Amino acid sequence: MLNSRAEAFAPATVANLGVGFDILGLAIAGSGDTIIAEWADEPGVHIAGIEGDGGKLPLDPKRNVASIAAAALLKQLEVAQGVKLYLKKGLPLSSGLGSSAASAVAAVVAVNALLGEPLTRPELLPACLEGEAAVSGYHADNVAPCLFGGITLTNGITADRIRSLPVPRGLYLAFITPHIEVPTSTARAVLPVHVPLKAMVQQTGAVAELIDALYRGDIPTMARAMESDNVIEPARQHLMPYMADMRAIAKQQGAYGLVISGAGPTLCAVCDDEAVARRVAQALREGYAARGMGSYSRYGGVLAEGSRAVVFS
Amino acid sequence: MLNSRAEAFAPATVANLGVGFDILGLAIAGSGDTIIAEWADEPGVHIAGIEGDGGKLPLDPKRNVASIAAAALLKQLEVAQGVKLYLKKGLPLSSGLGSSAASAVAAVVAVNALLGEPLTRPELLPACLEGEAAVSGYHADNVAPCLFGGITLTNGITADRIRSLPVPRGLYLAFITPHIEVPTSTARAVLPVHVPLKAMVQQTGAVAELIDALYRGDIPTMARAMESDNVIEPARQHLMPYMADMRAIAKQQGAYGLVISGAGPTLCAVCDDEAVARRVAQALREGYAARGMGSYSRYGGVLAEGSRAVVFS
Repeated sequence: MLNSRAEAFAPATVANLGVGFDILGLAIAGSGDTIIAEWADEPGVHIAGIEGDGGKLPLDPKRNVASIAAAALLKQLEVAQGVKLYLKKGLPLSSGLGSSAASAVAAVVAVNALLGEPLTRPELLPACLEGEAAVSGYHADNVAPCLFGGITLTNGITADRIRSLPVPRGLYLAFITPHIEVPTSTARAVLPVHVPLKAMVQQTGAVAELIDALYRGDIPTMARAMESDNVIEPARQHLMPYMADMRAIAKQQGAYGLVISGAGPTLCAVCDDEAVARRVAQALREGYAARGMGSYSRYGGVLAEGSRAVVFS
Repeated sequence: MLNSRAEAFAPATVANLGVGFDILGLAIAGSGDTIIAEWADEPGVHIAGIEGDGGKLPLDPKRNVASIAAAALLKQLEVAQGVKLYLKKGLPLSSGLGSSAASAVAAVVAVNALLGEPLTRPELLPACLEGEAAVSGYHADNVAPCLFGGITLTNGITADRIRSLPVPRGLYLAFITPHIEVPTSTARAVLPVHVPLKAMVQQTGAVAELIDALYRGDIPTMARAMESDNVIEPARQHLMPYMADMRAIAKQQGAYGLVISGAGPTLCAVCDDEAVARRVAQALREGYAARGMGSYSRYGGVLAEGSRAVVFS
């Protein structure tokens, strides 16, 4: 059944959760990208408009992650008819909130809805990854939580290698995005190629502690385990302005821990109460302001359901 | 309340569980060491007898892990009276079944029982570690499951850094110990000092998958995750005779996976049924025999309660 128009929302996501570099991710309620898909007269995928990106995203459909992902879906389904996309960016670019994954997922979910939902969520994963790959390679650590929701464990780029993990009751996160860009490529370039075996043992132990804490709904231990990253954060923290100060501020306001969200510069504080998360987000914004730096703050729980669409028949 | 005599059993343990090098361990039902503690006329700890060790263990109480651990407990409790220990070794030495941990734990649990149980299990950990440290350094990955039972996550050498993990229903393990010794020092010497970052990511992902599988009671995925070790096993497998053959044999007989137990040479096969585990153990023994090698096989479930004592007042 074809619809005339479909609108999809795809959430912001936090990759890594500190110690779970390249394997863990989480979908955030409230923030995200929205994409509207309609049929086009011409074949192929067209970008009919973009708002909220400050003019930075390419309108060329061969270079935009949303259109690349949508084109991959049309190809997968052997759909000849063209599609046009309107992008409403709700997420800042290169900020560590999974902006490109959100655009790719929203495009794919919107076009799938336009087509009457021929594919299930897991079947949409390859097309989403095609979009994400255009900017940051074949990684599913943002795409998986964005598409499926909740907290995800990603051990590969196929749906059977992705697992939903339990979300502790009462988990709220506070985010602060300072007004600087940290391209993922820069954040990747500073990482070590090798790590000491001892560091690997600590890292595996902390990841195990984190998964155990998720199942037990133990937010303080979850935050402690997330912060136990002794490989990625030490290599990247110099790219995150005032990170140590922000961690101290977050904890003063009741957060249990603070980590880099994805490749940064957004920082993510772990809280067990919505009011605390709101207070922490506010304090972090004031903290950056006191240091002469603009920032954008947000807070929210974990979005259980992932990307979703509404259709207009 | 002092007793006249106490006898403690401490189980064999599997450290590492493949991918969980230095952090995971499990207590095996059925096999273990037994130690009898009695009061001595002389102060200090004395080894009154050892059986089952083929004459290999030192009778010198300053060099025997059991007496070193017992002496640490007496010192911790400021007990002046002497103690004598009888050791019944049920575990082969240097075989990857936590033989030294079992002796240390059995000694401590026996002496604590002799003293009327003044200390709780977690309070016994330091003395057990003193014994274990005499042969293999301060590691709790065998001592923790031996003392506490079940499957344990060890993130440090204090009780608050050790967690009990859920044991999947129906989990049975088959073990084969070929008649060669692999000293832990040799097995440690072959390990890499550094590992590629990519390998660390895979290792953390596999550990996360393993913990998730334990909580979901998913034995096939547990075994798959255990086998996903791409750091330790590749470095050690040449020390384990015919390991690839044994893995193939175990799987032919219905096991879901096979890993090195601790530092080896014992191999541990993961099964979801007692009859399958018995069959696998038998087939592994025949497999070594067909290759001209003697071996000892055993099988069993996970021992939930850890080391335990009976007293004679």
